[in-house]
Amino acid sequence: MIDVAVFGAGRIGNIHAGNAAKSPGVRLAHVFDPNTQAANALAAKLGAQVASVEQIFGDDKIKAVMICSYTDTHADLILAAAAAGKQIFCEKPVDLDVARARACAAAVEKAGVTCMIGFQRRFDPTFSALKARLATGEIGTPEMLIVTSRDPGAPPIPYIKSSGGIFKDMLIHDFDIFRWILEDDPETIHASASCLTDPGIAEAGDGDSTAVTIQTKKGRLCQINTSRRAAYGYDQRFEVLGSGGMLQAGNHAPTEVVASTTRAVSRDLPEHFFLERYRAAYAAEMSHFFAVLSGAEQLRTTIADGVKALELADAATTSWREGRIVRMNA
Amino acid sequence: MIDVAVFGAGRIGNIHAGNAAKSPGVRLAHVFDPNTQAANALAAKLGAQVASVEQIFGDDKIKAVMICSYTDTHADLILAAAAAGKQIFCEKPVDLDVARARACAAAVEKAGVTCMIGFQRRFDPTFSALKARLATGEIGTPEMLIVTSRDPGAPPIPYIKSSGGIFKDMLIHDFDIFRWILEDDPETIHASASCLTDPGIAEAGDGDSTAVTIQTKKGRLCQINTSRRAAYGYDQRFEVLGSGGMLQAGNHAPTEVVASTTRAVSRDLPEHFFLERYRAAYAAEMSHFFAVLSGAEQLRTTIADGVKALELADAATTSWREGRIVRMNA
Amino acid sequence: MIDVAVFGAGRIGNIHAGNAAKSPGVRLAHVFDPNTQAANALAAKLGAQVASVEQIFGDDKIKAVMICSYTDTHADLILAAAAAGKQIFCEKPVDLDVARARACAAAVEKAGVTCMIGFQRRFDPTFSALKARLATGEIGTPEMLIVTSRDPGAPPIPYIKSSGGIFKDMLIHDFDIFRWILEDDPETIHASASCLTDPGIAEAGDGDSTAVTIQTKKGRLCQINTSRRAAYGYDQRFEVLGSGGMLQAGNHAPTEVVASTTRAVSRDLPEHFFLERYRAAYAAEMSHFFAVLSGAEQLRTTIADGVKALELADAATTSWREGRIVRMNA
Amino acid sequence: MIDVAVFGAGRIGNIHAGNAAKSPGVRLAHVFDPNTQAANALAAKLGAQVASVEQIFGDDKIKAVMICSYTDTHADLILAAAAAGKQIFCEKPVDLDVARARACAAAVEKAGVTCMIGFQRRFDPTFSALKARLATGEIGTPEMLIVTSRDPGAPPIPYIKSSGGIFKDMLIHDFDIFRWILEDDPETIHASASCLTDPGIAEAGDGDSTAVTIQTKKGRLCQINTSRRAAYGYDQRFEVLGSGGMLQAGNHAPTEVVASTTRAVSRDLPEHFFLERYRAAYAAEMSHFFAVLSGAEQLRTTIADGVKALELADAATTSWREGRIVRMNA
Repeated sequence: MIDVAVFGAGRIGNIHAGNAAKSPGVRLAHVFDPNTQAANALAAKLGAQVASVEQIFGDDKIKAVMICSYTDTHADLILAAAAAGKQIFCEKPVDLDVARARACAAAVEKAGVTCMIGFQRRFDPTFSALKARLATGEIGTPEMLIVTSRDPGAPPIPYIKSSGGIFKDMLIHDFDIFRWILEDDPETIHASASCLTDPGIAEAGDGDSTAVTIQTKKGRLCQINTSRRAAYGYDQRFEVLGSGGMLQAGNHAPTEVVASTTRAVSRDLPEHFFLERYRAAYAAEMSHFFAVLSGAEQLRTTIADGVKALELADAATTSWREGRIVRMNA
Repeated sequence: MIDVAVFGAGRIGNIHAGNAAKSPGVRLAHVFDPNTQAANALAAKLGAQVASVEQIFGDDKIKAVMICSYTDTHADLILAAAAAGKQIFCEKPVDLDVARARACAAAVEKAGVTCMIGFQRRFDPTFSALKARLATGEIGTPEMLIVTSRDPGAPPIPYIKSSGGIFKDMLIHDFDIFRWILEDDPETIHASASCLTDPGIAEAGDGDSTAVTIQTKKGRLCQINTSRRAAYGYDQRFEVLGSGGMLQAGNHAPTEVVASTTRAVSRDLPEHFFLERYRAAYAAEMSHFFAVLSGAEQLRTTIADGVKALELADAATTSWREGRIVRMNA
Repeated sequence: MIDVAVFGAGRIGNIHAGNAAKSPGVRLAHVFDPNTQAANALAAKLGAQVASVEQIFGDDKIKAVMICSYTDTHADLILAAAAAGKQIFCEKPVDLDVARARACAAAVEKAGVTCMIGFQRRFDPTFSALKARLATGEIGTPEMLIVTSRDPGAPPIPYIKSSGGIFKDMLIHDFDIFRWILEDDPETIHASASCLTDPGIAEAGDGDSTAVTIQTKKGRLCQINTSRRAAYGYDQRFEVLGSGGMLQAGNHAPTEVVASTTRAVSRDLPEHFFLERYRAAYAAEMSHFFAVLSGAEQLRTTIADGVKALELADAATTSWREGRIVRMNA
Repeated sequence: MIDVAVFGAGRIGNIHAGNAAKSPGVRLAHVFDPNTQAANALAAKLGAQVASVEQIFGDDKIKAVMICSYTDTHADLILAAAAAGKQIFCEKPVDLDVARARACAAAVEKAGVTCMIGFQRRFDPTFSALKARLATGEIGTPEMLIVTSRDPGAPPIPYIKSSGGIFKDMLIHDFDIFRWILEDDPETIHASASCLTDPGIAEAGDGDSTAVTIQTKKGRLCQINTSRRAAYGYDQRFEVLGSGGMLQAGNHAPTEVVASTTRAVSRDLPEHFFLERYRAAYAAEMSHFFAVLSGAEQLRTTIADGVKALELADAATTSWREGRIVRMNA
């Protein structure tokens, strides 16, 4: 039995804590959130105790912490957790600042602890099946990757203002997909962005629609298109063209009902947002974390992955703001 | 908190007991199975106690029982549970004999207890969404129902011999779908069967492939086709033609990966068998049972439904064996 | 160059004459229709001459005739054409009366002429590809056939009254599909019908919705469901379950546009009626006819096929009217 | 009746001449090709006469010419045809040199003749239906366009060497799709290319895989991805994200057969190459040309469209070769 604590009792904290509490051999011992009401509610729901940050890091029985708090607290918590010798699960991004993220990575390495970053998409049943089939050589050598990543609607403007911008906040996942699928280092990146859905986003200095091209050292090409608003819901697809064919990852629908009426033949919209679409992914991700801690599996999304995705987000931001192609360092 | 006991620690007992144990406000107190090893394993897994039939019925704290044992024990357990004033969940079929099933229904009614029959398909996300859309009038008045119901492979011959035949064992679900979807009483039924996949099934006096037509009192038509062996897996579809259109319930696939190679564009096979396909349905079914016990919902699959499906299975068997159309009594 | 004449300048006459006129090595010489205006229009459109029945049969240069006139003229025209030594293409059905159809078949055989019956569905790209794949053994031995055949709307009541009934008028095609796909003789047939879409059809003594089951001598099962009215258009599908898998023939859509809106993900309705859906089939059918005449191909839809489909339609009508299962003679 | 002549009796000349010859009110009078054998064959097939360039331009009865010859002859033939007052249909591209293309456009304007450029994709049933639905506002204001354009295999290296490069040879169509769908002027263009399928293409100084991003003056975003080799065939898709939803244009398949076997559920590959996929588009395009000549329709793909697509191809080539974002002049 391993005792764990969670920092952050918001939406994503609830998901991860819930999955942890259901994991065999895991006990959710402590919950911390500066919002006491949220902390109490989550602790009560899962039979845990509310605790302070100091109590958590000072409790030797706590072997692992799950960092699900605001982005600007991630780095400090990682550093403290590493110093305390705790195993770490941390939501993406590591930090909005690459230098700080690298410092975290160094601290984690020095402490010799596990630090898994929450790129849950790698654990999605469709995405992970595609990746596994790629590995069998089913479509030969990958040559191009096309990623479509669209949210059903934009977050509130205050959130956007503190988000680090669309490339760090939203495309961080897509940059990780790029690295995971093409398994090659980026050579150049070009990013465009526009504000097409809400002038408030432009006023906040951000874009809501982006188009990114990455060329890898091996010459492979990746295009990513994103929007903060797809009227039909959450659109999460990618396709890989290989020398021997193509693999496509499509959206999931809640049901398999098909209606034929006088107007059209129609199906369900995709599952509406990340809580629905990635429900299975979040569960599989947490299983992986505990399997890593038990020694049964090798860590698949490291803090180095978090740093690399952030470097791409940084470069994309620069490309867009400065209107130029950015060359990546190896 | 309500205490429940389960009879039967086999495959389906494990599913139902597991779902019950996860239900808020429910405590799985006792497990019974003549196979002590299976009973112990299930009890250990879910933190319950092994108990005898007598202990279960004699324990006043046990408010509800789940009958997941062999078919030939269902009727006795229903009668005993009704006599003991327990709320009942019973796997289909009530019994292979219509008269006994009716006797159980009468006992349940007299005792004033709930008796839910496990027609889990009604709780499948796709099937229940279709039913709900039918109720909105999206396709007008239903006129025809086509049911395709095919297993990936036949059960062992000894099982088939004691199963009551394909119409009672396999089509019992499809007859319930017919009643649930068309909401009309059968006027006539015609059933054909052949043995096409394994001569051993014919030697056991049964068929493995069937074609059934039911005409309702309102003239609506239903066709059911079934096979014990679909090489591509578990095929569970139906479609309803209405005056204003059609609704189709399709198979569920494990992932949404599409592969385009030099040979074809291909997708996943359907989820392989009932444990995968109806996982969500089993969970929703058990939620419904406890929601009924708490008074939050009205019972949706009663013992009367179990009797009616059995009557159709009986009539189909007669139609096939005697080579004639059978007229149903109201 | 082969000279041909067409009887009937209606909708189907226009299609066949147009396809003949476009065939290399074929000259559409004559057109006959009791409706002079229709005959003139068709002749003018295709550069042919209007002629009388006698002129056509008396003209030695005319080697082949296409019978596209009303059903009640088919048999007389076949007999006269056979007597005159003309090669024959005749629209289905041969006749509404099986005895007369058999007499026509005998006359054709005696005359040694070709008589192709217009079961154009066999020439549909999707249906013929499915048949070819069946022949390769892709799904092993066929066991079950499910045919869905629905019109977008019923013909006028006067047409229905003289149509011979829904089994001869509409299901004649489906009976031919049954014979073509399963390649086995029917042992028994059971047919139900209801009138659900228009009471006028019931008053005309016919049904608009049918459910048919055929069991073959080898025990294979076929179910056919039809309706005179599918609100979403022309629905022409069938599926074959074999020992090694399933082949399905789906509807054709006019375009491959997919729309995702706030309500649903939708596609085009199927092509609306037989003129659109079977356009390619009609062209391929006529190519086959002339390829047979030139000796390049073996006739694939003979008058014997026309008789056999009619026998099934007759038996289905009897089954429905007399409420009994009909046993077919070999 | 209008008399027309065709320059070029190759693959595309055969298609256009054949469609012209079938058009009501059109007579294919003359065929020219420096390859006499090809000219003779096409003329014989369609009942036309072989003629020299001078004869065609000197023949007053010839009202229109179709330029289907090698790209390097297009400009001279357009200039000569305009000077001779002929109506013009010309295959894309106008020329590989933008300045020459502009000179052609000026000559056409001065002569007051029609000059239609063969962007047949605009006439594809799926693409044109999507465009029409866009115009109805079905998905609101277009924001993003994603174009996937992949050939089944690369042309021979000698062809590639004289093709003007992949952006002028292959993406010229995609640039036209961009202009046609988004109806906005390009502000910037960024193009990457790699050689991933055949080193011979790199040796010829070209790429076989490209990734293009265009940002319009209104901030709309377009991404185009292309490959010279898709193992699964000819892949021609695009999707438009609008403020109210998405419209996608998918591939066409030869049949609607679906196979379910022990391995997968599979469908046909897309129609294999442009002759199959765009058969209907080529016919509709030629109908439009003659409808324009008769005054019934307004010209939809002008020489100005040809020039604009070429400007984009030029800019894309520069972007790739110089590794920079290119700003377009209005």
